[in-house]
Amino acid sequence: MINELVKKISDLNAPVVVGLDPMLSYVPDHIIKAAFDKYGETLEGAGEAIWQYNKAIVDAIYDIIPAVKPQIAMYEQFGIPGLVAFNKTCEYCKEKGLVIIGDIKRGDIGSTSGAYATGHLGKVQVGSKSYSGFTEDFVTVNPYLGTDGVKPFIDVCNEENKGIFVLVKTSNPSSGEFQDQLVDGTPIYELVARKVVEWGETCMGDTYSNVGCVVGATYPEQGKKLRKLMPKTYILVPGYGAQGGKAEDLVDYFNADGLGAIVNSSRGIITAYKQEKYAQFGEENFADASRQATLDMIEDIIGALARK
Amino acid sequence: MINELVKKISDLNAPVVVGLDPMLSYVPDHIIKAAFDKYGETLEGAGEAIWQYNKAIVDAIYDIIPAVKPQIAMYEQFGIPGLVAFNKTCEYCKEKGLVIIGDIKRGDIGSTSGAYATGHLGKVQVGSKSYSGFTEDFVTVNPYLGTDGVKPFIDVCNEENKGIFVLVKTSNPSSGEFQDQLVDGTPIYELVARKVVEWGETCMGDTYSNVGCVVGATYPEQGKKLRKLMPKTYILVPGYGAQGGKAEDLVDYFNADGLGAIVNSSRGIITAYKQEKYAQFGEENFADASRQATLDMIEDIIGALARK
Repeated sequence: MINELVKKISDLNAPVVVGLDPMLSYVPDHIIKAAFDKYGETLEGAGEAIWQYNKAIVDAIYDIIPAVKPQIAMYEQFGIPGLVAFNKTCEYCKEKGLVIIGDIKRGDIGSTSGAYATGHLGKVQVGSKSYSGFTEDFVTVNPYLGTDGVKPFIDVCNEENKGIFVLVKTSNPSSGEFQDQLVDGTPIYELVARKVVEWGETCMGDTYSNVGCVVGATYPEQGKKLRKLMPKTYILVPGYGAQGGKAEDLVDYFNADGLGAIVNSSRGIITAYKQEKYAQFGEENFADASRQATLDMIEDIIGALARK
Repeated sequence: MINELVKKISDLNAPVVVGLDPMLSYVPDHIIKAAFDKYGETLEGAGEAIWQYNKAIVDAIYDIIPAVKPQIAMYEQFGIPGLVAFNKTCEYCKEKGLVIIGDIKRGDIGSTSGAYATGHLGKVQVGSKSYSGFTEDFVTVNPYLGTDGVKPFIDVCNEENKGIFVLVKTSNPSSGEFQDQLVDGTPIYELVARKVVEWGETCMGDTYSNVGCVVGATYPEQGKKLRKLMPKTYILVPGYGAQGGKAEDLVDYFNADGLGAIVNSSRGIITAYKQEKYAQFGEENFADASRQATLDMIEDIIGALARK
């Protein structure tokens, strides 16, 4: 799957992914109203609203981006109807030719990680039939439980040509609390990175591994160091835009081939219409604002890479 | 919520929790057949089978245990119909008066952890109404992202009288890979434990905190040490039985008051009918086998505590 992702990124010259992380407060009033008119102020109504919101944004940007990253928590908060909207969103994005990175941050003991891998990346056997419960191409994985919590995901990636991004250094303010702790002078996140490289060798694509990692845009020094430490590992970079990461800080997350990283923006794109910069689009045309914000983001990052 | 859990454990003299972690291969043939007759070999059929299996086991044991711990991955592998079965199981257990510990091991950056906390422990606002997407009383939380990934859960616990169990030292073979790494002589899991104590002080019940922790039964030395380090923290102990943990090893996870730990068994209870020891019950009476296995587990642990 990393081969497909790399090809799309190269073809579009767009090392970006849009985070589909809807909150109801982001959804324009006319979509909320239509959803509540149909389903009432219910979880189903909320699910319908975020699905219609996603669909409009995807319709406006699918031709200029390689991938989307729906954050499952934003759907899970609405229970089953939220997860139905998650599934609809994934399936629609797949129809539109996008790579789906499910931001699920799962991770458990072996047999349990196996069940998550089956559900999100693989197929589950039911009698003589088999089904995909969810339909992502990549998922994010939490490494705290060690190799036997990650390996079941890799096994499914090898069977199904899928991929994972393992949390190495996350973008949030307190990520250093445990991740930066020094073990004989080496931070924990670097120990995780070394394991990611080892795991990645068992699941290679042509140039890059199907086992990628997550390094936040908010920690450029660490990103630069990790880039060198793991040359065949694709880095998923959250934290650009709303969380404070800037394009200039991100150039060192890329390899000399201009590849090796994919930068995520969520709020910066999906709530573009609420920003002064894109206010001229108006709430009705929120998806056009998202398209312009996506084009600006691509230009920002490609520009910074060209100046590198 | 920890007060309710402690009271139930004391009233029943049963510091145990049964893990409702169904695999289709665990479910007796007659239940599978009935479910597939009704829904076909579909995800809905699988969901129905695991729900009916859970229901029969819960009916057989609800009066002798304080709590259940459904592992959401086992449901998530069946997609939406699996999660419908998860929700039905939680709601049914609540009707039966059981405390629900959702083993979900979620954890993310602040706003995203907030969405998970809302979905599993809190209420989500939809227009003028509010709803619970899922209905657990406690959930398990992964600490890799640090304080700002955990605090949103604690905030909801304080609002809704709920609780969490934070992963400190997990039961799996490779848990030491990162968790045991020494930082100036102190293992990472102990650094996490100290934070759990700090977080716990902000969310206290009468004697114990609503912020508990997870320490695997398979690491008794660490369990003993952690018990002393965190006297007001309830320890959820997975790994008894099928994973190898023995009652004698677990007595040091308890405080002198006989409280402070709750021991989980999943396969050992729910697949009891497949074990030689309980074979006399027969597959048809699988739930009676689970009841006997639960009684035996309680006796085993209470016996070991009495001999301490």
